[in-house]
Amino acid sequence: MPRFSKSVSSLRSSEIRDLMTLASRPDIISFAGGMPGNDLFPVREIEELFSQLSEKTKQSAFQYGPTPGLPTLLESLGDFLEKKGLPVKENRLLITTGSQQALNLLAKAFIDPGDPVLVENPCFIGALSAFRAHEAALKGLPVDREGISIAALQEEIAHSVKPKFLYITPYFHNPAGLLYTQDRKEALVAALQGEEIPLIEDDAYGDLYFFEEDRLRLQPMKSINPGGIDICYTGSFSKILGPGLRLGWMLAPEEIYNKCELIKQSADACSPSFTQVIADTFIRSGQIDSYIASVRQEYKRRAAAMVAALREHLPDYVEWNEPRGGFYIWLTLPEGCDASRILQIAIEGGAVFVIGRTFDPTPSVVRNNTLRLSYCNNTPDQIAEGIPIVARAIRQICG
Amino acid sequence: MPRFSKSVSSLRSSEIRDLMTLASRPDIISFAGGMPGNDLFPVREIEELFSQLSEKTKQSAFQYGPTPGLPTLLESLGDFLEKKGLPVKENRLLITTGSQQALNLLAKAFIDPGDPVLVENPCFIGALSAFRAHEAALKGLPVDREGISIAALQEEIAHSVKPKFLYITPYFHNPAGLLYTQDRKEALVAALQGEEIPLIEDDAYGDLYFFEEDRLRLQPMKSINPGGIDICYTGSFSKILGPGLRLGWMLAPEEIYNKCELIKQSADACSPSFTQVIADTFIRSGQIDSYIASVRQEYKRRAAAMVAALREHLPDYVEWNEPRGGFYIWLTLPEGCDASRILQIAIEGGAVFVIGRTFDPTPSVVRNNTLRLSYCNNTPDQIAEGIPIVARAIRQICG
Repeated sequence: MPRFSKSVSSLRSSEIRDLMTLASRPDIISFAGGMPGNDLFPVREIEELFSQLSEKTKQSAFQYGPTPGLPTLLESLGDFLEKKGLPVKENRLLITTGSQQALNLLAKAFIDPGDPVLVENPCFIGALSAFRAHEAALKGLPVDREGISIAALQEEIAHSVKPKFLYITPYFHNPAGLLYTQDRKEALVAALQGEEIPLIEDDAYGDLYFFEEDRLRLQPMKSINPGGIDICYTGSFSKILGPGLRLGWMLAPEEIYNKCELIKQSADACSPSFTQVIADTFIRSGQIDSYIASVRQEYKRRAAAMVAALREHLPDYVEWNEPRGGFYIWLTLPEGCDASRILQIAIEGGAVFVIGRTFDPTPSVVRNNTLRLSYCNNTPDQIAEGIPIVARAIRQICG
Repeated sequence: MPRFSKSVSSLRSSEIRDLMTLASRPDIISFAGGMPGNDLFPVREIEELFSQLSEKTKQSAFQYGPTPGLPTLLESLGDFLEKKGLPVKENRLLITTGSQQALNLLAKAFIDPGDPVLVENPCFIGALSAFRAHEAALKGLPVDREGISIAALQEEIAHSVKPKFLYITPYFHNPAGLLYTQDRKEALVAALQGEEIPLIEDDAYGDLYFFEEDRLRLQPMKSINPGGIDICYTGSFSKILGPGLRLGWMLAPEEIYNKCELIKQSADACSPSFTQVIADTFIRSGQIDSYIASVRQEYKRRAAAMVAALREHLPDYVEWNEPRGGFYIWLTLPEGCDASRILQIAIEGGAVFVIGRTFDPTPSVVRNNTLRLSYCNNTPDQIAEGIPIVARAIRQICG
């Protein structure tokens, strides 16, 4: 028996992996994954853009790059982010191997075993996994339809050991689907002011909004660049180009950036040059903007199909919200309903989703009455076929 | 001031980074890097292979893949490794984001702060960086021309706290350039038998041999699969396709594999599908074999050019060995010579290399009389021009 380190000896395989194996079966309609639809990737466009590159640029795609990222991508991505109002010049930009790596670097930069870390409840599973791998003491703060509970945050700040940071996904939250209101964002900034609690603002889905009127709500808190709060803004090419490129980024104050760059050096030396060249070309061609506009419409169509199916088939006692962007709809069942049993019946019927408890930073054995549905990787037809299976399973368990 | 974790608060930027910036200057001849020559990458071949793939396969290049790697690459790479005699079926294969990530995953799996870890002295800088990031207490064991000192290893085993593992690069060692003898490999296996010290066998350069007669010496210890020793065999596409793909692998016993896969999940979810599709296609086309055969000849030619230049220009008191493969030649100067001062003079003259102390697991302030020269990224002409600069700098300092 190898003598493993303390930090990993308790690591266990998550149930989500078995679920994903199931979700890839052709006879199952999957509302489980958070992956873009395969049919939506700009395959032809990228191939053509790549073929037009100079021999020298193509060669550089095969070569090591600097740890922070290829200079040309740092420049083009920097411009892309500045157009969103982000303070690129006052901070440092780091290209990461997916935004999952950004979370892992930040976890390693800040967390000693047992350190308290604040997250939303529910919370993105990849963040939970990165923070748990560094033995954080996770504390989940509840969210409502407008964002994280400010009262719960203030209570935490007033009465507990100072947390190492607060991690949130304010824009089309995964898994809860919610979009923070402008008021809630302002209240959050006010509550953190001068508290020396860095904020990790994860914005993987913000580009996928369905309504122009939400543009203000989508403005990153990082773009306000409020004095007195260290905000680390993370983003990803996964939803606006393709997760298979494994490219994300972090925009952070210099001191935090420096530590993360050093950690990245020992983690994987640099992110893939090959896909960095692709992403850079995609941005510089301007095609990224038209591509995002087109997938935005497609996800809106898929979301509308799911909303229509849920309206038609779900019993009235299920609470949920129409999505305003992103990939997810979050269902809350009456207390006492067991989402695990619903999942089991749905799988037998031919549909799969993720139970809400998976996203709970400190999973309760008592409450198991929420679930997440993804519409991102399904055609309207598949949605129309699959939602009745889920609805029937809910009725069978909850009455 | 952010409150960083204990494990990173002491991390400092390494001097090697500034050196690499210098090495990329067009007016400097660089013997510093360990990167393949840009002109050697199979750019046209890969572009053509990719264009012939099915639409479905191209789409999969944009999508998330399973954490352990794309099944098709696990299969083709598994066959590639089995042909080398590696026990693929009795172990588990994990695709990593460069072999640097494999070292990082193993470091996290095994090392608690302060745990002793055995390495060669000198040792690959990426390994040192991964182990230091996990706060290992590094112990360097000397190498001679045949491999690691077995006496020093036995002494360590007999009298010290049991180390978490032993890390070695037996095949065209970076930086020392040496190739373990068959006898030394056998003695090493015998010394580790039943000691419960896992062996990390890093084989990033083994394919780049110059002499057919060395095939037996190049046979991995992992291929003997000796009972009683957990061997984790790591490798990389960096030297046989391109480092910009960021793809490596680890072949490890199941228990160790399982931990590393869980850690990888939280580190970056999966390695880039895009470059995995490329690597898979390259292997399946059979072109990988002819490509390796061609770069092998090219590196042999470059090595010969450096050997000729060193023979002509180096003073007799410098000790060095003709390389039998890989990228590097290791120079040992008389004791008391200061390689840092030599480097400074060489830079002024227009050539750069890495001083040997950089690769010392516990750098001594007293001894600084070794240096590493790379010939991998230089034409014979550049070598003929650059080596006299280094030789002059040596004479200037050492007399």
